[in-house]
Amino acid sequence: MRTPNRPIDRFYSVIPAGGIGSRLWPLSRADAPKFLHDLTGSGQTLLRDTWDRLAPLSGPDRVMVVTGRAHRAAVEAQLPELEDHNVVLESEPRDSSAAIGLAAAILNKREPGVIIGSFAADHVIKSEPLFRHAVAEAVAAADAGYIVTIGIQPTEPAIGFGYIKTAQQLDIEGAPSALSADSFVEKPSLAIAKRYVANGHYLWNAGMFIARADRLLEELGKTEPELLAGILELAEAWDTPERGAVVDKVWPKLKKIAIDYSVAEPAAAAGTLAVIPGQFDWDDVGDFASIAKLHSGGRKRDLAILGEGARVLADSSSGIVVSHTGRMIALIGVEDIVVIDTPDALLVTTSANAQKVKSVVDALKLSGSSDVL
Amino acid sequence: MRTPNRPIDRFYSVIPAGGIGSRLWPLSRADAPKFLHDLTGSGQTLLRDTWDRLAPLSGPDRVMVVTGRAHRAAVEAQLPELEDHNVVLESEPRDSSAAIGLAAAILNKREPGVIIGSFAADHVIKSEPLFRHAVAEAVAAADAGYIVTIGIQPTEPAIGFGYIKTAQQLDIEGAPSALSADSFVEKPSLAIAKRYVANGHYLWNAGMFIARADRLLEELGKTEPELLAGILELAEAWDTPERGAVVDKVWPKLKKIAIDYSVAEPAAAAGTLAVIPGQFDWDDVGDFASIAKLHSGGRKRDLAILGEGARVLADSSSGIVVSHTGRMIALIGVEDIVVIDTPDALLVTTSANAQKVKSVVDALKLSGSSDVL
Repeated sequence: MRTPNRPIDRFYSVIPAGGIGSRLWPLSRADAPKFLHDLTGSGQTLLRDTWDRLAPLSGPDRVMVVTGRAHRAAVEAQLPELEDHNVVLESEPRDSSAAIGLAAAILNKREPGVIIGSFAADHVIKSEPLFRHAVAEAVAAADAGYIVTIGIQPTEPAIGFGYIKTAQQLDIEGAPSALSADSFVEKPSLAIAKRYVANGHYLWNAGMFIARADRLLEELGKTEPELLAGILELAEAWDTPERGAVVDKVWPKLKKIAIDYSVAEPAAAAGTLAVIPGQFDWDDVGDFASIAKLHSGGRKRDLAILGEGARVLADSSSGIVVSHTGRMIALIGVEDIVVIDTPDALLVTTSANAQKVKSVVDALKLSGSSDVL
Repeated sequence: MRTPNRPIDRFYSVIPAGGIGSRLWPLSRADAPKFLHDLTGSGQTLLRDTWDRLAPLSGPDRVMVVTGRAHRAAVEAQLPELEDHNVVLESEPRDSSAAIGLAAAILNKREPGVIIGSFAADHVIKSEPLFRHAVAEAVAAADAGYIVTIGIQPTEPAIGFGYIKTAQQLDIEGAPSALSADSFVEKPSLAIAKRYVANGHYLWNAGMFIARADRLLEELGKTEPELLAGILELAEAWDTPERGAVVDKVWPKLKKIAIDYSVAEPAAAAGTLAVIPGQFDWDDVGDFASIAKLHSGGRKRDLAILGEGARVLADSSSGIVVSHTGRMIALIGVEDIVVIDTPDALLVTTSANAQKVKSVVDALKLSGSSDVL
C-alpha cells in the first residue's frame, strides 16, 4: 500500500490548540502555551510542525484550528495560510468534547459527509510517511462508519500516557490493520506498564480521533445529549450574524468533558471504535523528561541544551537545560537535572520529578503568584 | 580569666581583604569578592562583621586593612571609621606574606614593639567572647616572642580546612592554654580527617596569626630574605612622598607565597610557634556547602534561602538557594542542591560538588567568558 501524496478526499484536519502544558512551566505559560514553543529543535513551533504535517493530508484550505481568543494573534502569526473561516475561537476552555464537537458540527453543516481528523497542536511525530499511511487507513475506517483512533505501538513502558487495549482484527476495506478496541486504560504504574508492553495488545492513546463528522456527533449525542444540543445550536448560528450572541449564550454553559469519555470509550464499549496501530515515533512532550529524551536520543548521560544563544558550561552533568535568558549557566555534578531558565522564573528539578511540575503551578496559583503563570 | 573589654595594649589588628573566593562564584566576583557579601544573614558584609569583631580589641583607630586598589571604594564604604593611614592598597595581589609582612613593617616602623594580629576579612565567628579571650592569650604569647596562631577545636572531620598538629603545653604567662605545634598539615581526605578529630591533638588552621611585628619580620627574613628586603624598602618609603614610586618599582616583584609557608611552618619546626586552641565557632565559608551548613544549623534536610526579596517555592528539596534576581525559583525533589541565581550567571550544583566550583571559574577564564567572572 502506498502512502497518499495528495490530499485525502473529503478529509478535514482539526487542530485543537488549547491547554497550557502546566508540566512545562516556566517555559509554557498562560500567554505562551506549549504549542507556541519549539521543543524539538526543528526551528519552528509545535503548532507549525503540526500544520506542516496535516496540510498535505487535507489541503491547506481544509485545516481548522480551535483555540482560545487570547491566542488568536499568535496562531495566525504561526499559520499565515490559515483561512478565516477555519478559525474557531473559544471564549473560554470547555475541554475537548466541546472543541472537537463544535468543529465537527460546523464542518458537517458546511459539507455533509465530511470526515474529520483531530490531532493535538503540541505533539511530536517523526517518520511522517508512516503517520500519513496510518491516517489514510483511519479515514477509510471512518468512511465505513467507525469512530477511529490511531494508537501508537509502545517503545517502552511509559507511565505518562494512557493505553488502549486492542482486541480482534476488523475487516475494513482500505484499513487492513484496523483492530477493534477492548478498552481504554488510564496512565498506569510502571509495573503495569511493563505488563502492557510485554502483552503486545496495548497501544498508547495519542488522542487522535478520526470520524465522519455526523457519526462523531451521533456518538456524542448518545452520552451527552445536552452538550450535543448546545453544539448544534452553535453550529447553526456559526456562519450567520447571530454567531456572537449565540456563543455568548451557549458556550460558557457547555459541559467540560474529554472526548475520550464522551465518545471514544463508549464507542469502544459498543464495538464501533476502530484502532489503527501507528508504527511512527510519537510523543506528547508532556514534561521535561520527555523533552530531554527527545533530544538525547534516549541516552541517559547526555545533557540537552535548548534555547537560542544558550551559554551552558557543564561538568559531569546530564538532563536538560532550557535557557531563555542568555545568562551563563554552569552545572557541576548534577545528573538527570532539569533547569529551565526564563526571565522571571527558574525551575530546578530532576527528570524523575518532571510530572510533579504541575503541582508547582497549582501551588503558585494558590499562593497568588499568578504573575509568573 | 576575664575576657578583655577594653582595647589590648600595644595591639594592632590587620585585615588582609583579598581573594575573590572562586568557590563562591557566581556570587563572589572579581568586582564583588566574598568579603563584600553578607553570607551569614547578619544584614551586613563579612568585612563589616570582621571590623566589628576586631575594632573593640585594638581600638577602631588601630585596624589596618590591606586590599586591592579596585576594592578601595567598597572597603571605605563598608568601614567609614577606617582611617586613611590604615589603608594599604595593593597594586596587584602578591599573596599573604607580602600583604601581612608589609603591614607588619609599616606598623613596626611607626610603633616599634607593636603586636599585630592578622585575621581574614571573610571568615565567620560566633561566640565572640571566646574569640576575644583567645586573642588575649595569643597577644600574651606574642609578647613573649612567639609567632602565634589560633587553632580551632574541630567539631567535625572537615576536609576543606588544613590542620595543625599540636604538641606539648607551653608555659607562657597570660597564655595558659598555649601549646607548641608539631606540624601543619594540608586539607586531608575524609578518612584522615576522621583520624585527626578522634586523635584530639589536631586543630583547624584558621589562618589567624598574632606576633610582635619585629618577630614576624625576623622569621620571614630567615626563609625569604629577598621578600623581606623588598617589604622593608616599601615600609621605609611608605609614609614619605616616595611611596608611589617605590611601590611601582618593588611591589610587582615580590615573591608570591602564603605566610603559612614563609613564617608559620618554619616557626613550628623551630619550636617558636605557639597555638592557642579556640573553642569558638569558626568557618571560612569557603564554599556553598559551608554556607548551607551555616544556615541550616547542620541539619541536612533544610533548605537555606539567601538574598533580599528571594521568592522560592520548594517541594521535597534541601540545600541552599541564593537569589539576587527576585525571580521566582521553584525546586522540586532536589536534595543537597546549590542554586545561585544572579543577573548574568546561574550555578546549579550539589553540596558534595561545592569544592569544584573553582574549576568552573577556571574553565570560564579559559573559554574567554570573563564577562561573568
